[in-house]
Amino acid sequence: MKKFLVPAAALVLGAAFSFNAAAQAKPEDLVKQRKAALTMVGKYFGPVGAMVQGKAPYDAAIVTRNAGYLEVLSAMPWDGFQASTEGVKDTRAKPEIYKNAGKFEQYAKDMQGAIAKLNTAAKSGDQNAVKAAFGDTGKACKACHDDFRRD
Amino acid sequence: MKKFLVPAAALVLGAAFSFNAAAQAKPEDLVKQRKAALTMVGKYFGPVGAMVQGKAPYDAAIVTRNAGYLEVLSAMPWDGFQASTEGVKDTRAKPEIYKNAGKFEQYAKDMQGAIAKLNTAAKSGDQNAVKAAFGDTGKACKACHDDFRRD
Repeated sequence: MKKFLVPAAALVLGAAFSFNAAAQAKPEDLVKQRKAALTMVGKYFGPVGAMVQGKAPYDAAIVTRNAGYLEVLSAMPWDGFQASTEGVKDTRAKPEIYKNAGKFEQYAKDMQGAIAKLNTAAKSGDQNAVKAAFGDTGKACKACHDDFRRD
Repeated sequence: MKKFLVPAAALVLGAAFSFNAAAQAKPEDLVKQRKAALTMVGKYFGPVGAMVQGKAPYDAAIVTRNAGYLEVLSAMPWDGFQASTEGVKDTRAKPEIYKNAGKFEQYAKDMQGAIAKLNTAAKSGDQNAVKAAFGDTGKACKACHDDFRRD
């Protein structure tokens, strides 16, 4: 699975790229889709957290499945963050995203990199590595939320 | 990527299975997550349709990317359809799903099978095969919607 197939900056900045539905989608649909992608990230990230924190029995098969799903899902939210969505009300995304596209893109890359490492750790079967990678991924999520998501 | 890791019937019917977050999730969250999964299916299925119908330029790289995403996404909606969600209002899912779990499970399998074939066709580079597989996938979607989704 290729990552960064369409660079986030190209999308955020609206630079030219070959056909991509996101470029033609309605702002409301872009918001709905990016929220859906992040909801799915939460669905599969949350249970890994419960396991590494000892709140649920550790199930390596579920961790590996979820980490694999997360690596794919981690590519999906970003093309929904386009300046055309600034006026959409049903979102907590701050308009600063479109003024600091480079920073936002870096956060997106950091998140994808952290999840790739979580996937590698899950495949290794090393629970301590999974725990560390889970923590790093959570930090990557939080860094972006702190700067670019309303409370 | 293993398919049918957790059989849909086991989830719909509430049969015993090893730890799965869905079993412990709030009904509202299950609905939100299954809708999110299907929103993502739509995000990546729609543009393929536009291309095979000649409404957008055919871009093999996007078709292949989307079909790969779809094969992963196609596994994700089903564990959200649990009888505990019957009372949730913000859904078009009919309660008949939980009375005809076997039929619903078959639809879910049909959809996953059709999307797997779409992915194979996309990788082959044969546009006619992609077009045929797109049509079959659309039929699989519609069959389930007709029976189990409110208008």
